[in-house]
Amino acid sequence: MSSDKISSLVVVGSVALDTIEAGPPTKRETRQDVLGGSASFFSVAASYFAPVKLVAVVGEDFPREHTDLFAKKGVALDGLERAKGKTFRWSGRYSDDLSSRTTLDTQLNVFAEFNPKLPSAWQSPDLLFLGNILPTLQLSVLEQVKKPKLIAMDTMNLWIDTARKDLGHVLSKIDLLFVNDEEARQISGEHNLSLAAKAIIKQGPKTVIVKRGDSGALLFHEDKVFAAPAYPLETVSDPTGAGDTFAGGFMGYLAKVGNLSAESIRRAMYYGSVMASFSVEAFSLDRLQDLKHEEIEARYRAFIGLTHFETLKPL
Amino acid sequence: MSSDKISSLVVVGSVALDTIEAGPPTKRETRQDVLGGSASFFSVAASYFAPVKLVAVVGEDFPREHTDLFAKKGVALDGLERAKGKTFRWSGRYSDDLSSRTTLDTQLNVFAEFNPKLPSAWQSPDLLFLGNILPTLQLSVLEQVKKPKLIAMDTMNLWIDTARKDLGHVLSKIDLLFVNDEEARQISGEHNLSLAAKAIIKQGPKTVIVKRGDSGALLFHEDKVFAAPAYPLETVSDPTGAGDTFAGGFMGYLAKVGNLSAESIRRAMYYGSVMASFSVEAFSLDRLQDLKHEEIEARYRAFIGLTHFETLKPL
Repeated sequence: MSSDKISSLVVVGSVALDTIEAGPPTKRETRQDVLGGSASFFSVAASYFAPVKLVAVVGEDFPREHTDLFAKKGVALDGLERAKGKTFRWSGRYSDDLSSRTTLDTQLNVFAEFNPKLPSAWQSPDLLFLGNILPTLQLSVLEQVKKPKLIAMDTMNLWIDTARKDLGHVLSKIDLLFVNDEEARQISGEHNLSLAAKAIIKQGPKTVIVKRGDSGALLFHEDKVFAAPAYPLETVSDPTGAGDTFAGGFMGYLAKVGNLSAESIRRAMYYGSVMASFSVEAFSLDRLQDLKHEEIEARYRAFIGLTHFETLKPL
Repeated sequence: MSSDKISSLVVVGSVALDTIEAGPPTKRETRQDVLGGSASFFSVAASYFAPVKLVAVVGEDFPREHTDLFAKKGVALDGLERAKGKTFRWSGRYSDDLSSRTTLDTQLNVFAEFNPKLPSAWQSPDLLFLGNILPTLQLSVLEQVKKPKLIAMDTMNLWIDTARKDLGHVLSKIDLLFVNDEEARQISGEHNLSLAAKAIIKQGPKTVIVKRGDSGALLFHEDKVFAAPAYPLETVSDPTGAGDTFAGGFMGYLAKVGNLSAESIRRAMYYGSVMASFSVEAFSLDRLQDLKHEEIEARYRAFIGLTHFETLKPL
């Protein structure tokens, strides 16, 4: 990858209306038709660092307040198609400890016919994030773009199970894969995460970031590993979108600093963790959408305090 | 706690002969009557940093090679009682992914009558580690010692279930509790680890260290948290004793540097993690017993590389 100046950031993914049962054990709640989808979390998280260009589809029922939110955050919407029909809906229930979830319902609606088209002015992005969508759609996006400096993607167990060949094609064309630990194991057939990451790197991406929820995230690159902690939060309400928020903070920070140096990548891991730590504190994008830059910097410093040697008072 | 010069380190715990079924999925093995027990792992891990005084009991069948090992490592054995009967035996089987284990058999043998007695010259230790034994025995040790600068302890689910009142007494008298995440939840009744640690701190210890296996360790002290990562190892053979090894590296390092400053405590978290990362690479103390100081320092530097910003090559 070149380290020429980076500026533009394009995300392709889902925008959805989610119905979610979650909350801490003492305060379980169900929220109906709230803003969700990989591209929503990614865009809003990244928007604190750099302008974002969003490619996705919504239905005629998609509330104006959500497009207003994107616009307010400086997310360019020329690639947001409004199609006939209803917006993609997902419904899920989290376990009491929020460590696992059950999908209750998925209605693809307009997402079933989604055929992402990048506006012509967006076809040479510096940074491209392929959110978790059908691998053939990710491939069609790759055919529309010219030489991004960094192509990153996410995927899910469904595609690993049902579209492995297409997924293999995408993997061979990208630079960075975001996965959670179970997906890393499923793609590679290796339980050990170091071995899993090595096996995935052989399939294409030079870098693999394994997101491990409240155990933090690991970045594997060549023979090096970098570990970013998760912040031990006292209140976790809704883990939905934490991984996409992490990716948004990560890629947004890289767009902001304008290079892909080792140090920038490592700091990006922290900013990804910072944004994810805010996201899970409330349902949907409730916490993520109203952050102040000072809050982000204060949480970043808290993460540094979490891992550096010099900041604790004597016992 | 005072920050006067620290020098002596006493551990009270179990010395056992373990029979263990473990190993990576591709190379499962059973090892019969190998050296185990909390005090064994603790002592050998700590011995790389400072002299250790061991208080424990073994039976007449305890192999000479193991006492020779302790002696070779500079572990003082005046407190190692040899009682009539057989040595404490534990047998367990790990799951294929080594994330959980089943106890197959426990034979307390001489451990059933263990009544720890500290040699009179050992009754003013600077650092005292109460390994995982019956809380009443931990209390009897506390009655024998004068003003340690730091009293740390470990415990287990069995005592949390069956001896909670005695455990509460011990907790009210110690400075630092080592627990794993499930034990922290069990003691406190809180699933969230930050809240669990806060609740435990209210019961006595000023500091709680939550050991999370391959997710690293968290130190809670006042309103501060510190996170030490686990090293993403490619080979894990036997997790037995990892927690005691962590505690041994932690306390041994503090004895070596001779103070309890914030920075020392944080570095001790890393040295604990370093020693645990070696321990799990082989069965029993096979890897732990033959380490070179250069290996320990190299692994320590690898841990620093895992969490600091400046050491990765550009993508």
